[in-house]
Amino acid sequence: MIELYHWEPNAASARVLIALEEKGLKFESRYLDVLAFEQFAPELLDLNPFGQVPILTDGEEVFSEASYICEYLDEAYPDPPLLPQTPIDRWAARAWQKYVDDYLAAAVSDLAWPALGLPALTGQGPADLAGAIDRIPVKQRRDQWRAAAGGPDPDVLQQARERIRLTIDKTEADLAERDWLAPGGFSLADIAVYPYLNYLPRIAPELLGKRSAAWLARMAARPAVKAAEAMGRTGDPYAVSAPGPEPIRWG
Amino acid sequence: MIELYHWEPNAASARVLIALEEKGLKFESRYLDVLAFEQFAPELLDLNPFGQVPILTDGEEVFSEASYICEYLDEAYPDPPLLPQTPIDRWAARAWQKYVDDYLAAAVSDLAWPALGLPALTGQGPADLAGAIDRIPVKQRRDQWRAAAGGPDPDVLQQARERIRLTIDKTEADLAERDWLAPGGFSLADIAVYPYLNYLPRIAPELLGKRSAAWLARMAARPAVKAAEAMGRTGDPYAVSAPGPEPIRWG
Repeated sequence: MIELYHWEPNAASARVLIALEEKGLKFESRYLDVLAFEQFAPELLDLNPFGQVPILTDGEEVFSEASYICEYLDEAYPDPPLLPQTPIDRWAARAWQKYVDDYLAAAVSDLAWPALGLPALTGQGPADLAGAIDRIPVKQRRDQWRAAAGGPDPDVLQQARERIRLTIDKTEADLAERDWLAPGGFSLADIAVYPYLNYLPRIAPELLGKRSAAWLARMAARPAVKAAEAMGRTGDPYAVSAPGPEPIRWG
Repeated sequence: MIELYHWEPNAASARVLIALEEKGLKFESRYLDVLAFEQFAPELLDLNPFGQVPILTDGEEVFSEASYICEYLDEAYPDPPLLPQTPIDRWAARAWQKYVDDYLAAAVSDLAWPALGLPALTGQGPADLAGAIDRIPVKQRRDQWRAAAGGPDPDVLQQARERIRLTIDKTEADLAERDWLAPGGFSLADIAVYPYLNYLPRIAPELLGKRSAAWLARMAARPAVKAAEAMGRTGDPYAVSAPGPEPIRWG
């Protein structure tokens, strides 16, 4: 049996939810409220000591890191394939995944957090927010949430906007040549990028290019994306945004 | 024809050199002196605008990012395979690669740079170092080299030591169960980790565990590793260390 521990179907959680739905795999959804810090419960830290979702379990095995969870699913459940067929095109799809992991996820989070996440945290979050943050048992996450609970830094916002602008330059170029981001058809590249760029219509529509907007609409129309987006609690998975995923940090 | 643009066969350059040698692939070695900033020459920036090596070309195609260059090689030239056979074991090998990319590479570089790289840069580097750094055409790299040319930060050194200690906890645990890091035999996990932990005998031997030291010796004895390590200019690829690889940053 596959279980997926996830938050609202946006960002990294959405990547794995969409991949599962595209594969038509049966799985148990284990919804966690990230803004209530449920990911730091002892039983969750047993599964991922870094206090981050998504976490996928398949039988006895536990998997973290969205890019590599998706690669695992594509290998363990190859039909339909979610990576292109040729090694060259597969590199291109994986390069998009790495770009999301190392760059786009943080840029979008930097921009979305003060617009959406911070009000949600202070408005609906733990009553004693400072105390709740003090009790986070993973030092790096504690520091990260403490910083996130502060106000936005104008330099960070400006840099995030610039990085998103450069990303859109790249998606517009890719989408001038084809319907999906990587050569070889719909792939994990689209699944990786969509749950981040899909914030733009809400937080920075002026940054979105024409072809990228049409691609977002194509993505949103996919039955798997619709099914994934129905698995949230709020009805609008892009209403809030958790502090940006950080690279894995062991310790 | 395959060409590899690389520096001394340590760190990320070594990962791809070793993979090529393990595959028995013929390739042209294009050696660049990173401390002389040759990676920022216009023809190199055409291949990788981020000003980083290694860069692999295969015919007309250009590949960057060591983890994904290695995955490309394993798919395009599958014999002998360098990833385990089962999806679960392949995830474990890839998780090691991600750990190196996001965590170990920077920790080792933080420790190795002041010990080895900085003296090499100031001793043998460009005569007008500050001027040479000012002329680096990629802003992020310019900032990174400017910081690297300064002295070490004791907090950063302390954190690097702690992270390496935690890494060795993990390699010792893995190697208690088997000869190679990932289950399923020798893999890209070993190739990814070796060119970093192999600094420890030189810069921090007290951090190295018994099983990890024996594993380093097993790695060093492999013909492919010997062949890769013979491709440097200095005769000792671990005598110097470039500023740590950073995640890909497009723009």
